[in-house]
Amino acid sequence: MAKNVAQKLIESHLVDGEMTPGKEIALTIDQTLTQDATGTLVMLELEAMQLDRVKTEISAQYVDHNLIQEDNKNPDDHLFLQSACERFGAWFSRPGNGISHAVHMERFGRPGKTLLGSDSHTPAGGSMGMLAIGAGGLEVAMAMAGEPLYTKMPKVFGVKLTGKLPDWVSAKDVILEMLRRHGVSGGAGTIIEYYGPGLDNLEAMDRHVIANMGAELGATTTVFPADAEIKRFLTSQGRGDEYEEWVADPGASYDKHDEIDMSTLVPLIAKPTSPGNVVPVSEVAGGELYQAYIGSSANPGYRDFAMAAEMVRGRQASQKVSFDINPSSRAMLETLARDNLLGPLIAGGARLHQAGCNGCIGMGQAPAHKRNSLRTTPRNFPGRSGTKEDSVFLCSPETATASALMGEITDPRTLDFAYPRVSNPDDPVINERMLESPLPLEEARQVELVKGPNIASLPDFDGIPDSFDLPVLLKVGDDISTDEIMRAGAEVLPFRSNIPEIANFVYDVVDEQYPTRARDTGDHAIIGGSNYGQGSSREHAAIAPRYLGLRVVIAKDYARIHWQNLVNFGVLPLTYASAADHDRLEQGSKLRISGLHEALASGNTVNVETEGGDTVECHHGLSSRQIEILRAGGLINWKRDQG
Amino acid sequence: MAKNVAQKLIESHLVDGEMTPGKEIALTIDQTLTQDATGTLVMLELEAMQLDRVKTEISAQYVDHNLIQEDNKNPDDHLFLQSACERFGAWFSRPGNGISHAVHMERFGRPGKTLLGSDSHTPAGGSMGMLAIGAGGLEVAMAMAGEPLYTKMPKVFGVKLTGKLPDWVSAKDVILEMLRRHGVSGGAGTIIEYYGPGLDNLEAMDRHVIANMGAELGATTTVFPADAEIKRFLTSQGRGDEYEEWVADPGASYDKHDEIDMSTLVPLIAKPTSPGNVVPVSEVAGGELYQAYIGSSANPGYRDFAMAAEMVRGRQASQKVSFDINPSSRAMLETLARDNLLGPLIAGGARLHQAGCNGCIGMGQAPAHKRNSLRTTPRNFPGRSGTKEDSVFLCSPETATASALMGEITDPRTLDFAYPRVSNPDDPVINERMLESPLPLEEARQVELVKGPNIASLPDFDGIPDSFDLPVLLKVGDDISTDEIMRAGAEVLPFRSNIPEIANFVYDVVDEQYPTRARDTGDHAIIGGSNYGQGSSREHAAIAPRYLGLRVVIAKDYARIHWQNLVNFGVLPLTYASAADHDRLEQGSKLRISGLHEALASGNTVNVETEGGDTVECHHGLSSRQIEILRAGGLINWKRDQG
Repeated sequence: MAKNVAQKLIESHLVDGEMTPGKEIALTIDQTLTQDATGTLVMLELEAMQLDRVKTEISAQYVDHNLIQEDNKNPDDHLFLQSACERFGAWFSRPGNGISHAVHMERFGRPGKTLLGSDSHTPAGGSMGMLAIGAGGLEVAMAMAGEPLYTKMPKVFGVKLTGKLPDWVSAKDVILEMLRRHGVSGGAGTIIEYYGPGLDNLEAMDRHVIANMGAELGATTTVFPADAEIKRFLTSQGRGDEYEEWVADPGASYDKHDEIDMSTLVPLIAKPTSPGNVVPVSEVAGGELYQAYIGSSANPGYRDFAMAAEMVRGRQASQKVSFDINPSSRAMLETLARDNLLGPLIAGGARLHQAGCNGCIGMGQAPAHKRNSLRTTPRNFPGRSGTKEDSVFLCSPETATASALMGEITDPRTLDFAYPRVSNPDDPVINERMLESPLPLEEARQVELVKGPNIASLPDFDGIPDSFDLPVLLKVGDDISTDEIMRAGAEVLPFRSNIPEIANFVYDVVDEQYPTRARDTGDHAIIGGSNYGQGSSREHAAIAPRYLGLRVVIAKDYARIHWQNLVNFGVLPLTYASAADHDRLEQGSKLRISGLHEALASGNTVNVETEGGDTVECHHGLSSRQIEILRAGGLINWKRDQG
Repeated sequence: MAKNVAQKLIESHLVDGEMTPGKEIALTIDQTLTQDATGTLVMLELEAMQLDRVKTEISAQYVDHNLIQEDNKNPDDHLFLQSACERFGAWFSRPGNGISHAVHMERFGRPGKTLLGSDSHTPAGGSMGMLAIGAGGLEVAMAMAGEPLYTKMPKVFGVKLTGKLPDWVSAKDVILEMLRRHGVSGGAGTIIEYYGPGLDNLEAMDRHVIANMGAELGATTTVFPADAEIKRFLTSQGRGDEYEEWVADPGASYDKHDEIDMSTLVPLIAKPTSPGNVVPVSEVAGGELYQAYIGSSANPGYRDFAMAAEMVRGRQASQKVSFDINPSSRAMLETLARDNLLGPLIAGGARLHQAGCNGCIGMGQAPAHKRNSLRTTPRNFPGRSGTKEDSVFLCSPETATASALMGEITDPRTLDFAYPRVSNPDDPVINERMLESPLPLEEARQVELVKGPNIASLPDFDGIPDSFDLPVLLKVGDDISTDEIMRAGAEVLPFRSNIPEIANFVYDVVDEQYPTRARDTGDHAIIGGSNYGQGSSREHAAIAPRYLGLRVVIAKDYARIHWQNLVNFGVLPLTYASAADHDRLEQGSKLRISGLHEALASGNTVNVETEGGDTVECHHGLSSRQIEILRAGGLINWKRDQG
């Protein structure tokens, strides 16, 4: 049967399951990518697993998010990550070396490989014929430890590209057109695969733009074929020998389909406050402007910055506009310097920042209150810029720069000068000196992890016992979110690498005495309503309560990811056999579970005794693998015990 | 009588007083400089004065401190400052244009002029034959409104420079030698004037290094002559016509004297945690290193960055070191780009930041916990870097770069390559396009101040009444500091431009109910001990309590600056005629003052009646000008009423 690229990539990595959309499959993972905001917990998880050395072909840790150092916490994290990479045999990309997605593509991306990354824009790697998927930190840690990725087989959404982009229109406008047509959930449950003659007009870094923002369509990932252009790109990066052709078989079909004639596109812009809120730039032209912002992983290419430089050469950004340049990688910045393109940017009024994520994730260059900011970044969710009442638009470098020059939102086609022709150089600077290679094994084994005062090893959890007494320390209502269980924010986030400290904030927005009560009590239970644990997938909402002694949650039902996180960190999540029993349990109730191991092994029922000797019948719904995990005290122990 | 340069500058600007050390003098101010951290309050003060247009020759507002934008507050401040400059006729230097002291020297510094700046490193301007003094915000606002500066006539401390600096030793080592010899208060009460044949070997920007860090000696300011080198510098900046020679008369004498033979100097370094803690670099060589940091107003010259670039050319900073480059001005950065010096820095591992103050004032690039940071910045007070337990050393660009290359503290003379010869170009880039010139008067009058949600006009205070009833809302002990009256820190500082909001934090570390009690009560008094209001000179510690209704403080005695701030914002500070009366006044006491205007006019005594009808005799010690100010409701009103 003729196969598309996505199917070929999956088939070549399939270790379990069948390739029927919606069915669970297990895939081997060749490469992982972690960034600093999620990486510290990943590395603590590897430490807790007692991993000796990563089992992937390549695991690379980047420092790109928390580059602003206002106190010791971020630099301490950087040093910890560096030491952890040395210990576990991962690559370490130092602060200032650039954004994970851009650097990974330049140095490590390889057609035909799988990449799992603890960053939602990991699918950018699909630009070069990889299967690149974003995941939670523990899933990436497990992949680093050699476990396959379990996921549902997605559908494949084929998009045929034809034609050539007109002047002033670029790759960003292609993905904005996809968002205009399909909205922010238009890619859900699918891998988007681009193909067709239009690809000949999109360079590798242009495809990166489109693959990166496939995340905004809700897609599992995006895939481009590995073709002659990818060969050119790899060759320019000194890695031509790593090229392998990955293209769809003639006659391959797709589960869903669309087609874009790129020659018909116009400059597009996503208005606040959703990437799906797309209109032609001409519709909002003339709007006021505070900021024009070039860079981030959504427009990381040399050509994106060179375009801005050529557009401002001999000109000047409006004195009303903050014109921010956020380089994507150090090597790219060095190439721009070599080609005398930094001068025109600086002369043109740019504020030039170090290579990293910067304003894209609200770590610097937040816009003024309610003032318009035009950005080439991938997302404009409210407040993501750092400014609570922000007004962020997403657009191409051409549109952002045109607007900077004119001091108002501007369709670049209305400028009074010719479209500058820029292209990516065939001889970019290759500079790996901020990228540390894995240490030899024996040397790695000597490395001590460097932990600043704010970094603590993960606590060691014991396996679930056969019987225990469990006072109910908290009963909560329906739709409790992980923001209520473990809030984020400036007061709490600094303790992201310190479970004992962050545990002081568990549930404090609901009941500020809960952490103290739990510390005093030890093992205990919480009673929840329905949709328990909705919202953010943060793992701290499971680890930190477990650290305080939470062993069992009984709820009407659960949000899927939090349910899985509870199991993964050794907490037993139960549901009522009869919903009416919910009213029989209160804060202060004393529960007893006995014969638990046998109950879990033999069926779906767990009986919970109350003080009066009555029984509340509960269900667990766990797979046999999950029961093993609970018996081990969580996924980390389970993996550690496997050796 | 033969005069030195300092005496000539003072004499040419003297409007009141006599030039005897220790006596009060009044000087006309030609130029002012404000930066964004202090400038917002200055501009609010000008608004409250109803100033139509600045009365100086040049007033320049820089945005260099708060460049990191994590939410809307900093960018909102920038827009406010821009609008205020447009309204009041000041120059506005946009975010990214650079550090005030470097840019001011390049664009505005002029021999023979006086410069008053709301930044303690304003004396850097003395490098080119100006009298450049740092002061509080309100003093600068008054100068912008045309008032003279009142200060005590300092002594003049002559330092004769001879000889030529050896290879690997530069201007920073000259000022470190001064600190080694004289310590951090060795310049107190003096103007330090450099002269002698050694000057021929120091370029204008080298002199800037020495004048800038004269602040660390505690000097009122530092003065260099305006000589042929200053003519060369001004000519290179396209301002040769602004040159005027200012040199000491033959035979001029000094109140105090020292001499440095520069040919005998070695690379020096100030160890934590004081700029006065100076030793030869060789004494600490081999020490561990986390960070090497080039830039700030203390080493702002092209040659400082060019030196770093030439030293790393073809080499690489150690992979253990964060090598941070903090450009001083946008024009200088553009010159470095033109001369192909950014490439070697980026290739060598630099993290390149936007032009501004950055790590020097703890706004980014804080070092890791207890790890060594070598910086070319002027100060290493504990915690100033942003990291509480920091370990900051001050040194030259040569020493910092050598250490970056070797990965440990390194005496640059021990490197295995030749000293690179670098010098400042005679044709630096001149780019004023991020520097907005004052608007024409009629246009300026149309400008509305742009106030983000966090910026509020100063409250209007009424003049002190002839009689009032004053409950005592707080009685405090001895040595109360302005940190207790109005604390700083991340929770409070965001409200720096919003008196009604910041008032919620007044005295809350002493008595958290005080702000509420004061709002409920209105006019009231506070009873203090001795040394009331010691510490930081922050004006908010006077404005905010006054906003809450504080009208009178009775204390044993006062710290000088806070006493002056109280008067300037309309609060009457009294002392006891008999210290024993202190015990008669308590929180809750009800006081009455009547016939106050007559009492202030006729002598030093103010009688305060207590509830029982008893009298507590107090003294005020105010000058007639200060009484006028209190009657007006503070200095701002006084100035406004003068029209």
